[in-house]
Amino acid sequence: MIDNKLSSLNNIKIILVEPSHNGNVGSTARAMLNMGLTRLCLVNPKNEVNDEALALASHATDIIKNIEIASTLKDALEDIDYVIGTSARVRRVSLPIEPIEVAAKECVKRIYSKQKVAILFGRERTGLFNEELLMSNIHAYIPTNEGYTSLNLAQAVQLVSYEIYKSYLSDMQQNCVPEYNYLHKKATINENQKFYDFLEESMISSGFLDSDNPGYVMDKIKRLFQRSELESQEINILRGFLNSMRDKK
Amino acid sequence: MIDNKLSSLNNIKIILVEPSHNGNVGSTARAMLNMGLTRLCLVNPKNEVNDEALALASHATDIIKNIEIASTLKDALEDIDYVIGTSARVRRVSLPIEPIEVAAKECVKRIYSKQKVAILFGRERTGLFNEELLMSNIHAYIPTNEGYTSLNLAQAVQLVSYEIYKSYLSDMQQNCVPEYNYLHKKATINENQKFYDFLEESMISSGFLDSDNPGYVMDKIKRLFQRSELESQEINILRGFLNSMRDKK
Repeated sequence: MIDNKLSSLNNIKIILVEPSHNGNVGSTARAMLNMGLTRLCLVNPKNEVNDEALALASHATDIIKNIEIASTLKDALEDIDYVIGTSARVRRVSLPIEPIEVAAKECVKRIYSKQKVAILFGRERTGLFNEELLMSNIHAYIPTNEGYTSLNLAQAVQLVSYEIYKSYLSDMQQNCVPEYNYLHKKATINENQKFYDFLEESMISSGFLDSDNPGYVMDKIKRLFQRSELESQEINILRGFLNSMRDKK
Repeated sequence: MIDNKLSSLNNIKIILVEPSHNGNVGSTARAMLNMGLTRLCLVNPKNEVNDEALALASHATDIIKNIEIASTLKDALEDIDYVIGTSARVRRVSLPIEPIEVAAKECVKRIYSKQKVAILFGRERTGLFNEELLMSNIHAYIPTNEGYTSLNLAQAVQLVSYEIYKSYLSDMQQNCVPEYNYLHKKATINENQKFYDFLEESMISSGFLDSDNPGYVMDKIKRLFQRSELESQEINILRGFLNSMRDKK
């Protein structure tokens, strides 16, 4: 399910420290795969990974099946070059702290230079302990409403993964717009002007506009269509309709 | 739980169309409040909102208690000026489509100029239908791994809310956003829908459209006018013109 061009993202490991709920583990896997991440590690999970995790993982069951279980954070970081710790709170001993957008850019820079990066997420209720945060190289926070900063664990992973994916895409200099153009062949200036002439003539001949003074209303109409940036096909539809109304007369 | 400086965010309404799972409704409320959003509306939900929603809402129970239930999307959009529809898939009739980062900036610009904005999220499995998407002014998509694009509903709301919050914060920091008032009194959703009905009827009675199958051409026409965000006065002009052509017959 992972495109070759996303393969460098395999150098990123998401680490959940002592998660309590299988549902969160499953939702985390799904959130990761949506953003092209596949390596998930649990440090000393409170429960064995079970069917609830698989159910919530939806199509990301491979991530659950290949999950890495470590007994300590130190073990989980064995193969890692650079560590980003997530934290919602100001810490007594804080490392450089950046919003996740900036941390994600740093992460992507690192994997491009062949480093392996881990991103740490803490316990559902209590987050990461100080000594765990001090195993990071930088800290990252998610900008939130100061009145309610506590995100669900899988939601936090979703936001971080999303910022990484966006940064990765933009580094690939790949336009992340789905491959199609919402605008079909746009009308030329000339087609537009001819259409406006035709419309004005129809408005005058129907008696709607005064031929001596079409100005204001025609300007309003032009303004409307100019905003929508007409396509050739749309002009054809509108002309066809006006013609059928005129013919009926 | 909402700081005064976030109060403009009250002009944003998150609309879930026919959600199936109470868990998703609860998680959505929590995700919203984390990003300072508070107005949640459900259109024709499959189940009554229950304790599961409240449990997953965590500290966002007020959002659940004040939830708005509408029987149709049209009703839900009654008080709204600008509509952003989310869509993962390529549509036959697509409006301008932007990544959520860009759509969020547009949303924040609108609320600064006192408009009310709705953001539409579709059903868990099938998303939004075509006619629902055509009630939007723009479409927004979440950049995802092309191998697995289907996000959980609450995760999608989380990402969109996050982009809105980020954009809002950065605009507050620049403290002067120009109020753009190039739009005069915008037509309501209801005025728009009535105009489309009138137009369709005119197209059928003139013989331009086949009454058995108005679909595709009418969708194209709606798409054109949705892009331009019609004003009330413009609708009056267009109706006046169509009437004068009909009277002539």
